[in-house]
Amino acid sequence: MASASALAIPVTAWSRQSPRPAIDAARLRNRLERLSTHGRPPGGNFASGVSRVAYSVADLTARAFIIDEIKSADIVPRIDAAGNIFARFGGQPNQPPILFGSHIDSVPNGGNFDGDLGFFSALEVIQAVQAAKVQTKHPLEMVLWAHEESTAFGIGTAASRIVAGDLQAGDMDRMWNGMKRGDAIKRIAGNPGQIETAVRGKGTWHSYVELHIEQGGTLDQAKVPIGIVEGIVGIHRYDVVIEGFANHAGTTPMNERKDAMVAAAQLTLAVREIAARRQGRQVGTVGRIEVEPNSPNVIPGKATLSVEFRDLSEQVLRELGDAVKTRGAAIAKETGTTITFTLASTNIGAPASGGVQAAIGKAASALSLQTRVLPSGAGHDAQQIARLCPMGMIFVPSVGGVSHSPKELTTWDDCARGASVLLGAVLELDARDSV
Amino acid sequence: MASASALAIPVTAWSRQSPRPAIDAARLRNRLERLSTHGRPPGGNFASGVSRVAYSVADLTARAFIIDEIKSADIVPRIDAAGNIFARFGGQPNQPPILFGSHIDSVPNGGNFDGDLGFFSALEVIQAVQAAKVQTKHPLEMVLWAHEESTAFGIGTAASRIVAGDLQAGDMDRMWNGMKRGDAIKRIAGNPGQIETAVRGKGTWHSYVELHIEQGGTLDQAKVPIGIVEGIVGIHRYDVVIEGFANHAGTTPMNERKDAMVAAAQLTLAVREIAARRQGRQVGTVGRIEVEPNSPNVIPGKATLSVEFRDLSEQVLRELGDAVKTRGAAIAKETGTTITFTLASTNIGAPASGGVQAAIGKAASALSLQTRVLPSGAGHDAQQIARLCPMGMIFVPSVGGVSHSPKELTTWDDCARGASVLLGAVLELDARDSV
Repeated sequence: MASASALAIPVTAWSRQSPRPAIDAARLRNRLERLSTHGRPPGGNFASGVSRVAYSVADLTARAFIIDEIKSADIVPRIDAAGNIFARFGGQPNQPPILFGSHIDSVPNGGNFDGDLGFFSALEVIQAVQAAKVQTKHPLEMVLWAHEESTAFGIGTAASRIVAGDLQAGDMDRMWNGMKRGDAIKRIAGNPGQIETAVRGKGTWHSYVELHIEQGGTLDQAKVPIGIVEGIVGIHRYDVVIEGFANHAGTTPMNERKDAMVAAAQLTLAVREIAARRQGRQVGTVGRIEVEPNSPNVIPGKATLSVEFRDLSEQVLRELGDAVKTRGAAIAKETGTTITFTLASTNIGAPASGGVQAAIGKAASALSLQTRVLPSGAGHDAQQIARLCPMGMIFVPSVGGVSHSPKELTTWDDCARGASVLLGAVLELDARDSV
Repeated sequence: MASASALAIPVTAWSRQSPRPAIDAARLRNRLERLSTHGRPPGGNFASGVSRVAYSVADLTARAFIIDEIKSADIVPRIDAAGNIFARFGGQPNQPPILFGSHIDSVPNGGNFDGDLGFFSALEVIQAVQAAKVQTKHPLEMVLWAHEESTAFGIGTAASRIVAGDLQAGDMDRMWNGMKRGDAIKRIAGNPGQIETAVRGKGTWHSYVELHIEQGGTLDQAKVPIGIVEGIVGIHRYDVVIEGFANHAGTTPMNERKDAMVAAAQLTLAVREIAARRQGRQVGTVGRIEVEPNSPNVIPGKATLSVEFRDLSEQVLRELGDAVKTRGAAIAKETGTTITFTLASTNIGAPASGGVQAAIGKAASALSLQTRVLPSGAGHDAQQIARLCPMGMIFVPSVGGVSHSPKELTTWDDCARGASVLLGAVLELDARDSV
């Protein structure tokens, strides 16, 4: 495996006079450490993780810091109507830009690499190209997607979704935490009144590439530093409501109960079994549950839970959903409850472009870094932008496969390797008129 | 079955000159209806149930209404240091009083009979005796127990518990809803600084009898109007904490998860199976659950739940607890979680006095009302007062066995029958020097 200090990009045809472009690993680390203070728990340190939910105060101060960093690279940040931040460098004016970037919003109690690494690596790419005085054919455009995690408003990849044209009437009126989505977007200097100006068409960009931590344990276990994403899984998420009958926990015999918690327990185990029993990488999760009245001495009369399935195949997702609904009907009968399933959200899976995968593979290969092709089990902004241009993603290892947790960790060497492959892939893509 | 209008108590030796004492069924109903407005949901009616948690504003206004009603009967309410309201009538000064009453606090979204019926029936007993000009040997003392439901501070029968001498250092400092228990007691005109003055000794009362709705379906199903309680079940309540590992729901394969919700689901089903598999009337309930971070796209890292068992036998309760802990250890192993059980509270079961049961039986018999002897699956203030004097309880049918719910219902005729039996039982007890 190449050491991080030897990760300068090999000179190719575009520039034989300039120094080899290389990312600055120390600067990258320093920026990630400074970003981590925005949303850090009181009294904590870098290892305490971060709570930087989109539109929160921590998100606002982090965005101000980021705008300063972009300006320090002598490029001009532009905020679109959805609050996404774009900045462009170089290229020929008649060429579509190559886009790359990520997000910096987090889940509550998240980690300091999810999104952050990909975003600051994008800035490194531009600064590396500037320093090496490389003249690219395509403008290089970096992006900060404003709202990726589904914490805020229950919508994941919300800001890139708008850019990709997924905009419904009433979207800006959606409420969360006592706040309208339009007002949230105003807080980050977006323009909800002209939100449609954020929508971009096919052909806007030459290609899109995103560096991200894997968030799973495949690369870490295999000791492979670079993952080439073959596609991003689709997600089918159901809201499930179980109606039983709330009654006194002391006076109601076991066989006369309509216990919504018992039904929820059976459904939770059914989800696990249905996801685990077939071949493949599909997963199923009950991540959220609320019971009512939620009192130790009352048999739960109602339970509300989330059921989520993920897989690359829409067909498999439909089959998993059908299986759990069938099982739910049997559980309802056995427990005397009613169970209703609502398909609350779907993320369509997105295959990565073969051309972008090849560019990533070539960049890694030039750095003597081993690669593995794998799917992304997590959703990413890349899957929205895949509707507009060829898309690819680079993964770096997550130690222990941990993410969405303060324990999320990618080594600084792996961070530098990922950023270097991003740089190489962008320059590889620049050499191609079509991907 | 005797009609409600024919429920006058037969004349016995104590008074051959006076009219037969009888409760006023219309007044009882009217008071219950008026009480129901204190804590009624906005825009609701009597059938909408009530939220009158102890120490809430609804509780405060209800107590003011009750004090007015007591005064209207020409007896003097006295509030003890725990906030219980007592009022006494008649009897010879050297005789211990016969105590009877109940509570008016409710669970959130509770019903209009749990507690309320027993309390206003106690007032009916005193007014019936006054109207009939009966001279009892023992003073008749009615009581409103200030805090019976375990919603407030997580403690059931909290106010009668103090009277029975169960008072620990720090009890008044316990926090709930941002409020100290001492401050809560001050709100209802108690005196937390002298809380020990609320403690009463053995021999304070001749006997205690409480009318209450059954809250189960035994009497309703059997079409028997009066239940004679043989004892009140004990309760063992565990706080269970399951520690798994929060991770991304998309990137963590099914076989690498440490899912606290899956473990909680298995434990919930184990509680049901353990309670249901043995002969007897024991019950087991998981009524409360919280998972963290409680997000659809994160595998739950932590679950906190309540496990509650109830039975007349302490031995059975210990065996049920041991069985679920053994099962918990196996579940922890299978799911890669840790599960800790804390015995958070115990209510010792209390047998009812044979003498009080006999008095109730005689009173019902004199009214030609059929009776059934049954245990109480719910906890009641009576089980605390059982430590101080002979105790008994009268149950009336709950339609469909429903309680702790707005759908809680006891017919007005059954309410009147219960109050009449309470009156008869008190007068029967008055005829006995010892019970």
